Amino acid sequence: QYFVDVDDIVAEKIVVSKESLRGTHFRRAGPRQKVYFESDEVHACIVTCGGLCPGLNTMIREIVCGLYHMYGVTGVLGIERLIGRIQRFLCSKHNPLTPKVVNDIHKRGGTIFGTLRGGHDTSKIVDSIQDRGINQVLIFEEIRRRGLKVAVVGIPKIIDNDIPVIDKSFGFDTAVEEAQRAISAAHVESESTENGIGVVKLMGRHSGFIAMYATLASRDVDCSLIPESPFYLEGPGGLFEYIEKRLNENGHMVIVVTEGAGQELLSGNTCTMDNIDASGNKQLQDVGFWISQKIKDHFSKKQKLTINLKYIDPTYMICAVPSNASDNVYCTLLAHSAIHGAMAGYTGFTVGPVNGKHSCIPFQRITERQNKVVITDRMWARCLSSTNQPSFFSPKQLFEKIGDEKHGDNHVEDLAIK
Amino acid sequence: QYFVDVDDIVAEKIVVSKESLRGTHFRRAGPRQKVYFESDEVHACIVTCGGLCPGLNTMIREIVCGLYHMYGVTGVLGIERLIGRIQRFLCSKHNPLTPKVVNDIHKRGGTIFGTLRGGHDTSKIVDSIQDRGINQVLIFEEIRRRGLKVAVVGIPKIIDNDIPVIDKSFGFDTAVEEAQRAISAAHVESESTENGIGVVKLMGRHSGFIAMYATLASRDVDCSLIPESPFYLEGPGGLFEYIEKRLNENGHMVIVVTEGAGQELLSGNTCTMDNIDASGNKQLQDVGFWISQKIKDHFSKKQKLTINLKYIDPTYMICAVPSNASDNVYCTLLAHSAIHGAMAGYTGFTVGPVNGKHSCIPFQRITERQNKVVITDRMWARCLSSTNQPSFFSPKQLFEKIGDEKHGDNHVEDLAIK
Amino acid sequence: QYFVDVDDIVAEKIVVSKESLRGTHFRRAGPRQKVYFESDEVHACIVTCGGLCPGLNTMIREIVCGLYHMYGVTGVLGIERLIGRIQRFLCSKHNPLTPKVVNDIHKRGGTIFGTLRGGHDTSKIVDSIQDRGINQVLIFEEIRRRGLKVAVVGIPKIIDNDIPVIDKSFGFDTAVEEAQRAISAAHVESESTENGIGVVKLMGRHSGFIAMYATLASRDVDCSLIPESPFYLEGPGGLFEYIEKRLNENGHMVIVVTEGAGQELLSGNTCTMDNIDASGNKQLQDVGFWISQKIKDHFSKKQKLTINLKYIDPTYMICAVPSNASDNVYCTLLAHSAIHGAMAGYTGFTVGPVNGKHSCIPFQRITERQNKVVITDRMWARCLSSTNQPSFFSPKQLFEKIGDEKHGDNHVEDLAIK
Amino acid sequence: QYFVDVDDIVAEKIVVSKESLRGTHFRRAGPRQKVYFESDEVHACIVTCGGLCPGLNTMIREIVCGLYHMYGVTGVLGIERLIGRIQRFLCSKHNPLTPKVVNDIHKRGGTIFGTLRGGHDTSKIVDSIQDRGINQVLIFEEIRRRGLKVAVVGIPKIIDNDIPVIDKSFGFDTAVEEAQRAISAAHVESESTENGIGVVKLMGRHSGFIAMYATLASRDVDCSLIPESPFYLEGPGGLFEYIEKRLNENGHMVIVVTEGAGQELLSGNTCTMDNIDASGNKQLQDVGFWISQKIKDHFSKKQKLTINLKYIDPTYMICAVPSNASDNVYCTLLAHSAIHGAMAGYTGFTVGPVNGKHSCIPFQRITERQNKVVITDRMWARCLSSTNQPSFFSPKQLFEKIGDEKHGDNHVEDLAIK
Repeated sequence: QYFVDVDDIVAEKIVVSKESLRGTHFRRAGPRQKVYFESDEVHACIVTCGGLCPGLNTMIREIVCGLYHMYGVTGVLGIERLIGRIQRFLCSKHNPLTPKVVNDIHKRGGTIFGTLRGGHDTSKIVDSIQDRGINQVLIFEEIRRRGLKVAVVGIPKIIDNDIPVIDKSFGFDTAVEEAQRAISAAHVESESTENGIGVVKLMGRHSGFIAMYATLASRDVDCSLIPESPFYLEGPGGLFEYIEKRLNENGHMVIVVTEGAGQELLSGNTCTMDNIDASGNKQLQDVGFWISQKIKDHFSKKQKLTINLKYIDPTYMICAVPSNASDNVYCTLLAHSAIHGAMAGYTGFTVGPVNGKHSCIPFQRITERQNKVVITDRMWARCLSSTNQPSFFSPKQLFEKIGDEKHGDNHVEDLAIK
Repeated sequence: QYFVDVDDIVAEKIVVSKESLRGTHFRRAGPRQKVYFESDEVHACIVTCGGLCPGLNTMIREIVCGLYHMYGVTGVLGIERLIGRIQRFLCSKHNPLTPKVVNDIHKRGGTIFGTLRGGHDTSKIVDSIQDRGINQVLIFEEIRRRGLKVAVVGIPKIIDNDIPVIDKSFGFDTAVEEAQRAISAAHVESESTENGIGVVKLMGRHSGFIAMYATLASRDVDCSLIPESPFYLEGPGGLFEYIEKRLNENGHMVIVVTEGAGQELLSGNTCTMDNIDASGNKQLQDVGFWISQKIKDHFSKKQKLTINLKYIDPTYMICAVPSNASDNVYCTLLAHSAIHGAMAGYTGFTVGPVNGKHSCIPFQRITERQNKVVITDRMWARCLSSTNQPSFFSPKQLFEKIGDEKHGDNHVEDLAIK
Repeated sequence: QYFVDVDDIVAEKIVVSKESLRGTHFRRAGPRQKVYFESDEVHACIVTCGGLCPGLNTMIREIVCGLYHMYGVTGVLGIERLIGRIQRFLCSKHNPLTPKVVNDIHKRGGTIFGTLRGGHDTSKIVDSIQDRGINQVLIFEEIRRRGLKVAVVGIPKIIDNDIPVIDKSFGFDTAVEEAQRAISAAHVESESTENGIGVVKLMGRHSGFIAMYATLASRDVDCSLIPESPFYLEGPGGLFEYIEKRLNENGHMVIVVTEGAGQELLSGNTCTMDNIDASGNKQLQDVGFWISQKIKDHFSKKQKLTINLKYIDPTYMICAVPSNASDNVYCTLLAHSAIHGAMAGYTGFTVGPVNGKHSCIPFQRITERQNKVVITDRMWARCLSSTNQPSFFSPKQLFEKIGDEKHGDNHVEDLAIK
Repeated sequence: QYFVDVDDIVAEKIVVSKESLRGTHFRRAGPRQKVYFESDEVHACIVTCGGLCPGLNTMIREIVCGLYHMYGVTGVLGIERLIGRIQRFLCSKHNPLTPKVVNDIHKRGGTIFGTLRGGHDTSKIVDSIQDRGINQVLIFEEIRRRGLKVAVVGIPKIIDNDIPVIDKSFGFDTAVEEAQRAISAAHVESESTENGIGVVKLMGRHSGFIAMYATLASRDVDCSLIPESPFYLEGPGGLFEYIEKRLNENGHMVIVVTEGAGQELLSGNTCTMDNIDASGNKQLQDVGFWISQKIKDHFSKKQKLTINLKYIDPTYMICAVPSNASDNVYCTLLAHSAIHGAMAGYTGFTVGPVNGKHSCIPFQRITERQNKVVITDRMWARCLSSTNQPSFFSPKQLFEKIGDEKHGDNHVEDLAIK
C-alpha cells in the first residue's frame, strides 16, 4: 500500500451540508508505481527566488536527499545568485549536490544558494537550464512556454501564507513563533512606561495571516491592523480614539500593523526608506514608521497627552531564523511530494496539503487569486475578541469592500509533460 | 455566516477513490445559533488529570476568557490538587476565575492548578461537583453515569499524540521542538568522542509519534525505536549488529528510544527506578536505562570495542516548557470548540480537528482504540529513510504483529444532554 | 569571617609595575558588624528612572528579599510610574513589598514598577519620600541636598556599560547575548542576496561597548562603528570604499553601528523619527536609518552597483528580555552590596565590583566622567582584527581626538550619613 | 602602549588591609615586544582531552585565527580522536587549519576534533608530536619531561570551575545558564503535583560552583547539595526532615544535587549506571539516582506520605550547547593570552584572569590544589539564604571537616623554554 493510486483525488471543499460533494479536486501527491524518468537520466536543478523564508535550507536538503534515497538520483544542481553579473551554478554536473553536502544545512537560517530576483532574470536562467540538459526544475512559467521536456515544480516560498488552496505555506509556523518574541518585547516596553505604546510591524503585503496568528498566539496585542480590514485614524470609531481609550483604561498598549495595512492612507507620506526590497514587487510605504509618526504627532501636538511610543520592526530577524521542528517535518513532506510529482512526469504544478492531504496543484490555481484573511470568518472574530479592538467599519461597509469571490469548477486538471 | 449549521458534519475519511463517500462523520464544532444554557446559569469547572503537557495553562486561559467574552459566563472554577488530603477548589463561587486572573498564565509551563490523578479520586471530585451545582465540567465518565444535567467535555491531554480520530493533540508540536534539543545534544556529544553513542528516551507509552516526528525534524538520528515496531538486540539483523556497523562507518551514532518500545524484552531487568509515575498507569520499565546498559555490556564485555555512551532523558524538561506559538493558537481553537459544544448542550464528547475541520467527537470514538504509528505507512518509511536503520522484521512478520484494524460505521452520534 | 572590616579598601589600579601601589581606593562592600539603622525603623523605597535594562526586576526582587532575610526589614515600598499625572506608590506602608510578592518577577523582562523620567519629576518624588518618613532610597542628588537622614544608594542602570570605575553594569551580558541574535540575522540576510549588506544598530549613546563585545562574540561583523572611533564616508580610506572592497571580495557584509556613532556627520539629516526617547537626554539622530540611506544612495545613484541593504534595529527587543543567569547572579551581588551599605549608614554612593571586588563608590566618581572604549587598547584592537575594517584615522589623528584623561588621587572618601 | 612590559606582574591577593601587598604574583599575559619564535618556524598543534565543555570550538577558532592574524602563523594542526586505534591528525602539514576552515565553528556545540582521553594515550600523542616537528602544543606534562623545545600551553577545560587561581573557567557561564533551564523545568513539574519534588543533578565532581550559581540565578531551589558541604538524610536536622517540612509548608520543592555531593553516603548502593564516564577519573556513584530512590523509599515506605518525585539529569545537554556571548568573548581573551605566551617562548603554563587581569600561571599552581566553594564565605551564605535549607552541620563541625588551607609564597616563577 506504499504507492498512491494514479486516480486518487483530493477535494478542496470537504464540509458536506446536505448536498453531494462537488467542486475542485486535485491529484493526490505521493509515489507512483510508474515513473516517467529513469533515475540516471534525471538532471534536477533547484532555483530560489525572492526574499528569505524559514525552511529554505531544509527544503533544499530534503529535495537532494529525497531524490538520492528514494530514486537514486545523484545529479542535482543548485543555481547560486549572480555574482559579478554572471549566472553561476553552485555545483557543476561533475560535482553535484549530495546528501553529504547538504547534511547539516537545515540547522542554519537563510539559503545556501542566494536568492534570485524573478522577472527579467528568469529568461537567462532558462537559457542556462536548457544549455545544461536539465530536465527537472523548481521554477516555472517561462520554461513551460518553450515546450521543453522539463518537469517544473514550484514550491510556494512565501512567508505571508497568502497562497490559496493549500493549508499553509512552509516557514509560517516559525515566522509566527518569532513574531511573538517581538510582540512580547513591545508588551514589556509599553508596560514599563507611562502611556507606553509598542508598535510592531509584521510581514504581509496583501494578507494579515502572520499578524492574526501572532496576535492570537501572544495575547498581548490590543490592536491588530491587517490589509484585509480597512481602518481610519481620526474621528469617532477611529484608531486614535481607541488608543486614547486603552491608555486611559490600562496605561499601555500594543499595536501590530501588517506591512500592507492601510496603504490607501499613506499617499502623502514623504519620509520613507525606499528601495528596501529589491525583489520586483510594488514598493510599499513603510506603514509602521508612518503610523508611529502619526500617533506621536496626534498625541504630542493635538492632545497634550505624553505618550512613549516604541517601534519594533522584526522583519529581517524573522526571515533569517532556522525553521522550527514543525516546519522541518512539513518541509520534508513538501519536498517528497514535489519529487514524486516530478518523477511521475507532472509539470507546471505546486504541492501542498489540501485539507490535510498532500496534493499536486496546477500553477494557475494558486496564482489566479491570493489567500486572504476572511474578516467575516470566525478566526478573525477570535482575533478581534482577543484584542477588543474596534471593527472600524460596519458589517455592511465591509461586505461592500470585500466583494464576492466565486470559484470551483469540478474537474481534475492534467499535469503531465506534453 | 458566523454560526455553524446544526446539521454540519465532518467526514473522517476524505480521500475518494472511485467510490462514494461513506464512513464515520462527526458534528462540526462551532457556535450554535441556539444554546442550551443561559449565561447566568452556567457554573463551569475545569479539572486537570495526569501528567503535564505544554499548553495546559493556555487551555485554561482560553476556556475562562472564551466563556467570559463569547457567552458572558463569569462563574468558572478550577479544581486544585489535593493538599493535606482535602480536595480544594482553587477559587470559590464568590471568587471565580476571571480573564484578569488568567491573563498571563499561558507564558508559563505547567498548570496553575495541580494535576489530579484519575481513578479513585474521580468519585470524590464528582461529589464536590454535584455539591456545588456545577453544570459544565471538563472531565468525564463517572459523572455521566449519574445522569446529571452536566455538560462534560473532555479535551485529550496527552503529549504522545496517540488519540485516534483527531489530527493531533495539543502540546505535541512543542514537545517535538523540545525533543529536538535533546537529540541535538546527543548528536554533539556522540560526535565528540570515539565510538560515541547518544541515547535519547522520548515519551510515548504506546505510540512513537514524538520519536518519529523528532527524528524527522532533527535528521540527526541513526535509529528510532518505537512501540509499534518490534526489534531485537542480538544476532543478525539485530540492534547490536547495526550499532557496530554504524560505528565502523561513522564513528558515532544517535539512538532514540520511545518510553514504550521493546517492553516485551525487559522482563528480567531488576535495576529500574520504580514509582516515578504515579498517575495510575501500568508502570513501564525504564527502557532508556535498560537499553543503555545492554549496549554497554555487549560492547565492553563481549566485543572488546570501547564505546562512549551518553544517556539523555529529557522527559520532564519537555513536559514543563510553555507551549509554542503554534500550540497557543491551536489551544484557542480547541477551547472555543469545547465551549461552543458545552453551551449547545452537548456532553460526553471531546473536540479536535478531523481532517482540518474542528469537530465534536463522542468519547467512545477516542477511547475505543489508540492512535498508533502505522509502520507500513509513508510517514514511517520517511523516518526509516532518514535514519537508514534496519527494519528488524520482514513485512510479513510485521503484518502478523499488527493485525487487522476495522472501524467506521456510517452514522452521526447523539451528543445532547439527556 | 562573615563581616567586612570597616577599614577594608579596594584599589582601583592593581597592575603593579616597579612602583608602589597608589591611586584611588574604595570602601569594600559587604555586611558590617555595626549597622546604623534598627531593622524596624527602616523605611526603604525603590525608584527606577529612565529606559529599560535587563535585570531590573531581579534587582527589585533581591533588594526586597535581601532586606527581609538579612536584616528583617519588612517595610519596602516601590514607586510606580505616574498614571493620570498623580505619583502613585505601588504599595502602601500597610501593604509593602514582600518576598512573596516579588518571588517570580525576575523571570519577566521590564520592571514591575514603571520607570520614571528624571529631571523635573525628581523633586515631586522627594516630596513624597519625605512625607512618608522613608529613610532608605535608591535615587539621589535632590534628596541629599535637603540634608535628610536618608541613605541614598544609586545602582547604575545603564545598558551601555559606560559607567567608569566599576567592572561592568548589570544587564550588559544579557544585552550582548541578545545583540548577537540580531547580528546573526543580519549575517544570514546579507549572505543570501547578491551584494547583501546587513546594518544593525546597537545601543550606546556615548560608548561602543555593546557593539564591541557583540562584534567579538558573534564574529560575523565586517565593520563596527562606535562613538569613540570617528569615521567618514567618502573618499580614500572611507566607509564606502571599504564596503565596495568587501562586496567585491565576499559578496556580502554586516555593519554594526552604535547609536551615538558618527553624530557629527548627521547635521543635515531631516528624515528622523524624533521624540522616540523621552528620558530627557539630548536627542540623537537615528544613525542606523541615516547610514542605511547614505549607503543606498551612494551605490544606487553614483556607482551603478546594485546592493541589497537590510536594516535591523533590535534596541527595544534587547532592552525587554529577562536577564540571563550570569546577570541574575550579578544583580544579587549588587543588591546585597547596596543593602549592606545602606544599613551601615552610608549614603550618596553606588556599588559595583572594582577589579572583581565589590565596593562602595561615591556618586561623583562615576558621574565625573564616562567610561569609554579605549581605541588604543587591546580590546578594540581585537575587535578590529576580527572585522578587518579600516581604522579611518591614523594613530596620531586619533590621539588628538581622544585627548588626555587624568584622574586618581589617593584617598578614601567618606560615605556616612551626616 | 600595545605591548605588555616583560616585568608586569599580577597579584593574586588584592584586598589590602593595613599591611603591605605580599603573596604570589604572576606574569601578565599579553603580546611581548620580543618573541621567541619566528612566524614561519612555528608548528602549532591543538589537542583536546576529556569531556565536552561549551566554548571548545570557539577556543579552537580563536587560536587558529589569532596565530594567523597576529603572528602570520599558518601551520596549525589539530589532533582528532582515535578512529580504528590509529591516532589521526585532522589536517596534515600540507593542509593545515586556516581561519576560513574554522570560521563558523563557534556556532556549534562540542568540538570539531574529538576529545582524547588522557592517561595512557598521552605518550602516543607526544610521539606523534615529536615526529612531526611540532613546537607549540596545547597539552602538557609528558612532553615537558622529555625536554623538547616545545611551548606547551594548557587551557583548563573544566566545566565545574574548580581551577584555583583564575577567576573562572570558560564555558561556566553557559553551563549555569543551561542548568537554570533544568531547574526551571523541575520547578514547574514539582509545582504541578501534590507533594511534588523535583531533583536536578548538576556537574561538579569535587566542587559545587555550578550548583551554587545556578541556585542563585534561578531562585527556584529549596535545597542545594554540594561536595563541600556534607549532609545526612535521617534524623533531626537531616534532609528527610527538611523535605517533610517544606512539603507541608509549600506543597512542593526543588532539590539540586551536585555530582560529587554525598559520595561518602553511597557505599552500599548497587543500582548504578557504571562506566558512563570513560575519561579516566574515579567513577562516582550516580548520586542523583541514589538520592531520588532514598527519598522515595523513605516517604513511600516509612512515612505513608505520597510524594511525586521527578528526577532530571541535564548533564549532557549542558555540555553540548554552544557557548553564549559572554563565553565567546572570554574564549577570545584566553586564546590570545595563550598565543602571546607561547610566542614569547613560555612553556608549562596556563592562562586566565587573576582578579580581572589576564595572566600566565605555571601548571603546578593550578594542579597543586582544587578550587572549592568556601562554605563559610558570603557567596555560599547567599545561596543558603536563597534556599532556606538547613546547614546540616554546626560551624564548628564544618571547620573540622574543611581543615586549613595555606598557600602563597612571594615570587614570580620562570616560564621560559629551557
